[in-house]
Amino acid sequence: MSHNTFGHLFRVTTWGESHGAAIGCVVDGCPPGIRFTLAEIQADLDRRRPGKSRFVTQRRELDEVKVLSGFVFDEDGVTMISTGTPISMVIENTDQRSKDYGEIARQYRPGHADYAYDVKYGIRDYRGGGRSSARETATRVAAGAIARKVVPGLVVRGALVAMGDKKIDRANWNWNFVDDAENPFFTPDPESVEVFSDYLDGIRKSGSSVGALIEIVADGVPAGLGAPLYAKLDQDLASNLMSINAVKGVEIGNGFEAAGMTGEQNADEMRMGNDGNPVFLSNNAGGILGGISTGQPVVARFAVKPTSSILTPRRSIDKDGRDVDVMTKGRHDPCVGIRAVPIGEAMVACAIADHYLRHRGQTGK
Amino acid sequence: MSHNTFGHLFRVTTWGESHGAAIGCVVDGCPPGIRFTLAEIQADLDRRRPGKSRFVTQRRELDEVKVLSGFVFDEDGVTMISTGTPISMVIENTDQRSKDYGEIARQYRPGHADYAYDVKYGIRDYRGGGRSSARETATRVAAGAIARKVVPGLVVRGALVAMGDKKIDRANWNWNFVDDAENPFFTPDPESVEVFSDYLDGIRKSGSSVGALIEIVADGVPAGLGAPLYAKLDQDLASNLMSINAVKGVEIGNGFEAAGMTGEQNADEMRMGNDGNPVFLSNNAGGILGGISTGQPVVARFAVKPTSSILTPRRSIDKDGRDVDVMTKGRHDPCVGIRAVPIGEAMVACAIADHYLRHRGQTGK
Amino acid sequence: MSHNTFGHLFRVTTWGESHGAAIGCVVDGCPPGIRFTLAEIQADLDRRRPGKSRFVTQRRELDEVKVLSGFVFDEDGVTMISTGTPISMVIENTDQRSKDYGEIARQYRPGHADYAYDVKYGIRDYRGGGRSSARETATRVAAGAIARKVVPGLVVRGALVAMGDKKIDRANWNWNFVDDAENPFFTPDPESVEVFSDYLDGIRKSGSSVGALIEIVADGVPAGLGAPLYAKLDQDLASNLMSINAVKGVEIGNGFEAAGMTGEQNADEMRMGNDGNPVFLSNNAGGILGGISTGQPVVARFAVKPTSSILTPRRSIDKDGRDVDVMTKGRHDPCVGIRAVPIGEAMVACAIADHYLRHRGQTGK
Amino acid sequence: MSHNTFGHLFRVTTWGESHGAAIGCVVDGCPPGIRFTLAEIQADLDRRRPGKSRFVTQRRELDEVKVLSGFVFDEDGVTMISTGTPISMVIENTDQRSKDYGEIARQYRPGHADYAYDVKYGIRDYRGGGRSSARETATRVAAGAIARKVVPGLVVRGALVAMGDKKIDRANWNWNFVDDAENPFFTPDPESVEVFSDYLDGIRKSGSSVGALIEIVADGVPAGLGAPLYAKLDQDLASNLMSINAVKGVEIGNGFEAAGMTGEQNADEMRMGNDGNPVFLSNNAGGILGGISTGQPVVARFAVKPTSSILTPRRSIDKDGRDVDVMTKGRHDPCVGIRAVPIGEAMVACAIADHYLRHRGQTGK
Repeated sequence: MSHNTFGHLFRVTTWGESHGAAIGCVVDGCPPGIRFTLAEIQADLDRRRPGKSRFVTQRRELDEVKVLSGFVFDEDGVTMISTGTPISMVIENTDQRSKDYGEIARQYRPGHADYAYDVKYGIRDYRGGGRSSARETATRVAAGAIARKVVPGLVVRGALVAMGDKKIDRANWNWNFVDDAENPFFTPDPESVEVFSDYLDGIRKSGSSVGALIEIVADGVPAGLGAPLYAKLDQDLASNLMSINAVKGVEIGNGFEAAGMTGEQNADEMRMGNDGNPVFLSNNAGGILGGISTGQPVVARFAVKPTSSILTPRRSIDKDGRDVDVMTKGRHDPCVGIRAVPIGEAMVACAIADHYLRHRGQTGK
Repeated sequence: MSHNTFGHLFRVTTWGESHGAAIGCVVDGCPPGIRFTLAEIQADLDRRRPGKSRFVTQRRELDEVKVLSGFVFDEDGVTMISTGTPISMVIENTDQRSKDYGEIARQYRPGHADYAYDVKYGIRDYRGGGRSSARETATRVAAGAIARKVVPGLVVRGALVAMGDKKIDRANWNWNFVDDAENPFFTPDPESVEVFSDYLDGIRKSGSSVGALIEIVADGVPAGLGAPLYAKLDQDLASNLMSINAVKGVEIGNGFEAAGMTGEQNADEMRMGNDGNPVFLSNNAGGILGGISTGQPVVARFAVKPTSSILTPRRSIDKDGRDVDVMTKGRHDPCVGIRAVPIGEAMVACAIADHYLRHRGQTGK
Repeated sequence: MSHNTFGHLFRVTTWGESHGAAIGCVVDGCPPGIRFTLAEIQADLDRRRPGKSRFVTQRRELDEVKVLSGFVFDEDGVTMISTGTPISMVIENTDQRSKDYGEIARQYRPGHADYAYDVKYGIRDYRGGGRSSARETATRVAAGAIARKVVPGLVVRGALVAMGDKKIDRANWNWNFVDDAENPFFTPDPESVEVFSDYLDGIRKSGSSVGALIEIVADGVPAGLGAPLYAKLDQDLASNLMSINAVKGVEIGNGFEAAGMTGEQNADEMRMGNDGNPVFLSNNAGGILGGISTGQPVVARFAVKPTSSILTPRRSIDKDGRDVDVMTKGRHDPCVGIRAVPIGEAMVACAIADHYLRHRGQTGK
Repeated sequence: MSHNTFGHLFRVTTWGESHGAAIGCVVDGCPPGIRFTLAEIQADLDRRRPGKSRFVTQRRELDEVKVLSGFVFDEDGVTMISTGTPISMVIENTDQRSKDYGEIARQYRPGHADYAYDVKYGIRDYRGGGRSSARETATRVAAGAIARKVVPGLVVRGALVAMGDKKIDRANWNWNFVDDAENPFFTPDPESVEVFSDYLDGIRKSGSSVGALIEIVADGVPAGLGAPLYAKLDQDLASNLMSINAVKGVEIGNGFEAAGMTGEQNADEMRMGNDGNPVFLSNNAGGILGGISTGQPVVARFAVKPTSSILTPRRSIDKDGRDVDVMTKGRHDPCVGIRAVPIGEAMVACAIADHYLRHRGQTGK
């Protein structure tokens, strides 16, 4: 990754701040002939959209995406077909609630990027978090909606598997439940909804916040994507997921658990299947061996820290070097990890689409 | 990262296989005027070198590095001064023990890259693991030795903090002990040596292997390195560390633990120090906020899986699609995580050196 | 360059087609604190704008640029100050004259990209030339307006020095005349206006077209930009200028003439100046020696071919492989080279801004 | 291009100075399964090698290349097969004639990079020109020998078409003569040998030097390589050729001549051929339309300036700011353009191989 562009052949450049006129992205390198509709992109965006339940920020944004370039309409006038030129997508900012930013402009919120920004650039757009607002992630979701189409048969799904100290029961895992209308958490475990609801209501009412753990599973990833060392598929998954705001850790397959295991426990044995294709007897590796996909589902998890926007005053300093106590009012997610699920899916889809094209470039497969 | 090159302004390209004539790297973009000696690079390489204790592979390699370009000698005839042109370093392979590779050539070792390689490339150098041999990591250590010099005041140190299910006691942390002659594990806890020794002797004698957890701490990282979103310092740390063989997870600061915390617990409060500089009262963020270094120590951890080279036969298949049982004989590390410590340091140093130059490029600071 | 992005630290990504909703660019990596106004960008765009004289296409576009991100307003509410985050600029397409594209959609215009596009992508937006329309160059000019501000003291100017077989008299060179209201050609030679006018009127009336030669001169380029071999400043100038539509040749300093000269003729001698700085006694090298700027003016020239959009029927084929005769009606520039002057300036400014940041990154200067 | 690496999917990194221990390159991204022999690479190197006639520098280098990685031997023990991992090639410097560099170390030779280097880096390896020595080009030729194999059916040939003010007669063009043993100039015109010999003998004896014009023709380039705007094939040809020492101009097809032509003259008309494939009736475009190859031969030309190493004293300054007169003694090419022919071929082959893989990546063709 370099600056605000990621990917090598399937490249995404994003731009925009929370309270500017708009946010957007340019998807470059998309193969020609990829078919998609505005409704499909919008559906992905709607999954990430704030204001859908009491558990996410009450900022109201329609997140209505426009596609400005890089396609021609099919004869139906609805289906867009990529032409191989850059696809520019823009989302206007409609709910930049006007307010007094006096304190936020000068005070460094603990755990936020405020201080680091000012040290680096000497200037920043502090309104709503500026460039580091979670709002920017909408553009990734839009790009991911295209990426999902690039690899035939690819299905990328995500789920929240822990919130604070509450965990799902993996025995109850049900992908169909993740996007259920009664499920405000993207949890795959129906029984967890009540637990998470009670827990997060308490967090929310106390003006606190809490972290989360997200798992992304990509099915249909062809074997052979990635490279032995410096273009490992797991590297780009790690980099893409770590680029999401508030993410502090990434793991593939068994991940950190593997550090505590023996070689016997961790190896994925193989046998020839009845259809003449190799069958793995387990997937500790998360679908990636030696940096290269094996054809098994690719499994990545990432840890989202609790947002530092909390009601309890925290000690900090301001631009003038004075000690201050900072308390964050306003519209915030008590658990930013919830909305990170579709974002994580998008970032994984982009990484896989990029490696699919890179693999095809080098090997012709 | 792209292909076998990593970094944007401080760029490292590595090449070489386990049993070819040599391995090496090209360090490109190094600022002119950086002073280093062959002995310094060699000292870093010696820390990683195999054959130093019974706990690491008995392959005997001198790992003698040659610097072929990119410098002029100072008047002392010993100190090398970078000229700003590419620094090429080569290490000859001297212990390519000749043997019959019949089975390894055809059988896919479970948990190894063998199968994925063949699917991707259709051809591979199977001798000693080829490109994915741990041997390649020597070139990273050589590059890291240069990187350490690029940022004034930078000190990058690493330590093994867990091996299998055994952990160090952080209360005993002693950096000076890490490179102690009596310490074959890079552990910072003197009391852990006996525990790890006994544990790993058991693993080794049973022909098994075990994973490990490594922590890297970079002191002296200037505030301001990184970027808000897609050139986050944590992203490049994650990508660099994930590029090391057998690494399956990376975290920054609190990392995965943050997912289980509240905003109150996780925020790093600040106060003005007596010297007029900001003081952070904790370092949950691992020295990085919003993708940008804060001036605190940068802390990263990574999980190394147990090597899949074990004596216990594992089920697998061969190139012809036949079911086979694979048992790995030969010289192997019972815990590859041990030697990952200097490698992790090198990769962190390279990421920081690169961001130091990028920050200077954009901001002039 | 990679895909639709150019530059390494000062990076520009452009998008958009002639007859889509809009065109635009993202300028990424701009240093923070660069001050600019919308009026300044617009002024550069107005120089390139079509419809200003009978010698350029009569397409009427206001080319009104909007800046959507990457800045904060200064207290005057007019001056924009870059924040170091991506600057997104958009120009709406307002004059997409509706018409029947029946023939253009199916016929390959000789000398145009139509055939090559279809072979490459299998699909294309043929309306107005799609992605390869000269309209796209407006986005480069907008990016260049920012680039000009990045290097203190940099002044980039361009001039048309030949049109078809008519040349200017360099003895009459007057930079002030280039943007004179009475000068529709960006020629620096006042006496050439009548010659060019008569010549181009003839070309235009006969439905023909003609090529041109453009010279760009950058004053105030600090010494030291570029690199000995693969990041030569002349390389990026060549690549940037060659990326402009219809450009078929680029040269630096004496350029092709140098091939016919002796070493004595071509060398630029030096002497120490009275102010203690080196003085070059000539500038055959065009301000670049060994890929690195010398502090002299940087001089580049590029050749623009005549547009292939002409009234005279030309032999060609169509999508179905049938022989056809193609005649291009519609609004076209009889000499596209005229409007290439501000575009060339912009591309040179972008290359220099990028190298300025790269040089600062590597050397700290 | 970035630093000392060029190409995106077929990437070449070069390193080394004239008088260091060795020079070399790393070819990364080569498809697996490409078959080549050491003898083939050596044959290309021998074409570029100095000391073959009185018209090129008398420096004696065997230029013996070693391939250190990235291949396995085929069963014949001679044919190398690429494995998809980096191919490292090294050429030792054997004729670093020891001498007193006193003056060269301090004086800036006019027309050379000496002054620009010192301004940029503050330090340089002045021995034999250091990094900017023509010797470095051997590594490009080695890389090009691999590149030639990547695109099935690709044939890249070059020829010297002008030397100083002497030109070949294109009517005599004979590709077979270019590598004839009686032809020390890579000229395609047998009748030009005597002219060039007499001319260059005069130049050489007078201690002067002269420029040259080189033409490269690539046959067998598939249609579809390149992109409409910023990844134009002509851009990368221009950048690659401009990266060669002493090159000051590049053109494609008609090039600068097109600036003086009308649209009628310059357009390449088409007709359907008897075999059902399109036939171009001319090739003014040099095989590239709108940045994309058309299937016609790709034609590029570049201008090489006369080397500034001449016997006639030239005015200059030294490191201490003193006026000096500089005269270059030693082994030099009176016309460096001669040996630029195989170098130009190599750089064109690398650009085409890279675009071939990029095109395959994006489109699957």
